[in-house]
Amino acid sequence: MNERLKKLVSLLKEQRIDALLVTKDVNIRYLTDFPAADSWLLVSPKKTYYITDFRYILEAKKSLKGIGVERCTKSLSETVAKLSGALRVKRLGFDERFLPVLYFKKLKSCCGSRIKLVSANGLVESLREVKTPEEISRIRKAIKVNLEAFEFLKGVIRPGLSERSILDALESFVKGKGATFSFAPIIASGPNSCFPHARISERKIKSDDIVMVDAGVDVDGYKSDLTRVYFLGKIPRLVKQVYIHVQTAQQRAIKKIKAKATACEVDQEARNYLTKNGLGKFFGHSLGHGVGLEIHESPTVSSKSSSVLKEGMIFTVEPAVYLPGKFGIRIEDMVLVTTNGCEVLSGNSPAQNIN
Amino acid sequence: MNERLKKLVSLLKEQRIDALLVTKDVNIRYLTDFPAADSWLLVSPKKTYYITDFRYILEAKKSLKGIGVERCTKSLSETVAKLSGALRVKRLGFDERFLPVLYFKKLKSCCGSRIKLVSANGLVESLREVKTPEEISRIRKAIKVNLEAFEFLKGVIRPGLSERSILDALESFVKGKGATFSFAPIIASGPNSCFPHARISERKIKSDDIVMVDAGVDVDGYKSDLTRVYFLGKIPRLVKQVYIHVQTAQQRAIKKIKAKATACEVDQEARNYLTKNGLGKFFGHSLGHGVGLEIHESPTVSSKSSSVLKEGMIFTVEPAVYLPGKFGIRIEDMVLVTTNGCEVLSGNSPAQNIN
Repeated sequence: MNERLKKLVSLLKEQRIDALLVTKDVNIRYLTDFPAADSWLLVSPKKTYYITDFRYILEAKKSLKGIGVERCTKSLSETVAKLSGALRVKRLGFDERFLPVLYFKKLKSCCGSRIKLVSANGLVESLREVKTPEEISRIRKAIKVNLEAFEFLKGVIRPGLSERSILDALESFVKGKGATFSFAPIIASGPNSCFPHARISERKIKSDDIVMVDAGVDVDGYKSDLTRVYFLGKIPRLVKQVYIHVQTAQQRAIKKIKAKATACEVDQEARNYLTKNGLGKFFGHSLGHGVGLEIHESPTVSSKSSSVLKEGMIFTVEPAVYLPGKFGIRIEDMVLVTTNGCEVLSGNSPAQNIN
Repeated sequence: MNERLKKLVSLLKEQRIDALLVTKDVNIRYLTDFPAADSWLLVSPKKTYYITDFRYILEAKKSLKGIGVERCTKSLSETVAKLSGALRVKRLGFDERFLPVLYFKKLKSCCGSRIKLVSANGLVESLREVKTPEEISRIRKAIKVNLEAFEFLKGVIRPGLSERSILDALESFVKGKGATFSFAPIIASGPNSCFPHARISERKIKSDDIVMVDAGVDVDGYKSDLTRVYFLGKIPRLVKQVYIHVQTAQQRAIKKIKAKATACEVDQEARNYLTKNGLGKFFGHSLGHGVGLEIHESPTVSSKSSSVLKEGMIFTVEPAVYLPGKFGIRIEDMVLVTTNGCEVLSGNSPAQNIN
């Protein structure tokens, strides 16, 4: 049993669960290092089973060490019930956020009265949110390419170019570094920047435009997510004021980050600062989110979050102000929580941009 | 209300459902042409609502015509319950395959006793499986690029090259055509070809190898999915025999395809032929699947399928034989069902390959 499965098994014991059904691909990948599709994992202290169909069975057997590989012939639910029976499982945990109603019904009917289905949400995520040194180093690689790409864009973005052609240039650069995008980038110029998730358009950059680029990179499965604002020509006074406020909000939030701080106090620090400066109502999303195998993962850094920060967590800090019909400013960096503070992994201070 | 929503509303009436909650992104995109994320659609004969959060609200309002755009502040479930109440919905349909248990529970609690949640699976898919002329033409574009890419590979694949470097060449070609992959291609050489879904490796092609390439292309959201086998040097007798059997199985299945035939009889035609020739047990997956906005969609063409074919359906026909430890042969084409037969959209007969 690998380290991750061992940790998960000890969580199961704490929760008095005899086995956990893992149905989400990325969680299966995290626990087994095998890229799953249409497959489930049944984790128990006695034995762990990877349940898959004809298509993946041979490769799974070749790749998975110390994990039973079970071919499901009739349905995943039936195989899970059969294996759970053999393992004498009485309480079978599952994550309600990822099991659709249909499969829950099937599973319940296959399990009968002897096996009780028990909600057990977020167990794998609670492991995933704290990164190992190996994972941190992989994320650093993604961030490195991401920052190089942003530097590259400084020489690319110019009046007359369309958002889409900037995207093409960015993609070639990222590909050339042996990486891929971790999500469809946002390249929002001029008034488009007031849409937090603007779609790429054919709009051509104008002189004096601002261009907001939110892009992430994926290197071997681990991801980055950063946002920079580029200025062309003279920066209007209002834009500059807003930018400095967003930047200050980010810096204040970053100062609050350390192990044992709460995610909500970090969010509040940025939000309160913007509110005091009359901009709070233009900051409608949460301050940040974990990044790793997924582009959005645990922890959530919002005003409602109940997360307590732990050493080894990696998340974004992305305060923003969107002025409808005018423009938007978002600055997004990634931090690694340490005992006494945090390391800004996307180190080059965005403060350089404005002056 | 657009044509697709009109058709869906008439299905709702048939099923005596007052409103349908659509939670799956691609279904929302199909119905609204708006690329959804973390958003839901509530469809009713009176009015349709797109429910989203702060991030997408402005863009949704700009793009969606004739559809109410509702910002959800507390939770999607709460907003759905509130709107359903205002629409006097008594029976609210949802698709059990796509709604996770957690959201079902929340929705049920928000809806209270006046609104009954009713299973209504596959309604949007039943529209999507029959393609409009516009959709057919888009899929033709994807297939065209796919076939050109396969032709291009003839000049690329040679001994000494790794599977991964073939992938890189394929990707550059596809990108150069303004398209992307519709899924991570399978390039399986030599014995790797006996894994139906082999992972790309660093294995170098040998002389006399066979190379199986399963690749698809995405042009503006619509997809293709085709498989070809490339032979280097002399083709061993067993490989040739198996190839001809797989090809014959495919041709026999294709002859059975027409409107009102059943999907299972088409699958059986290929499967029985392979079984008669001692190869049935090496063909472990279904014969085919619909392709469109998703790479796998309705209809399923398998021995268990209850689908009746309809004019305008597009699906793959992909019989295969995988001989463990030796090699595998899969031939995959895409067909369009017509009144009296079908059109093989990926027209060039794979018969050319073997001689």
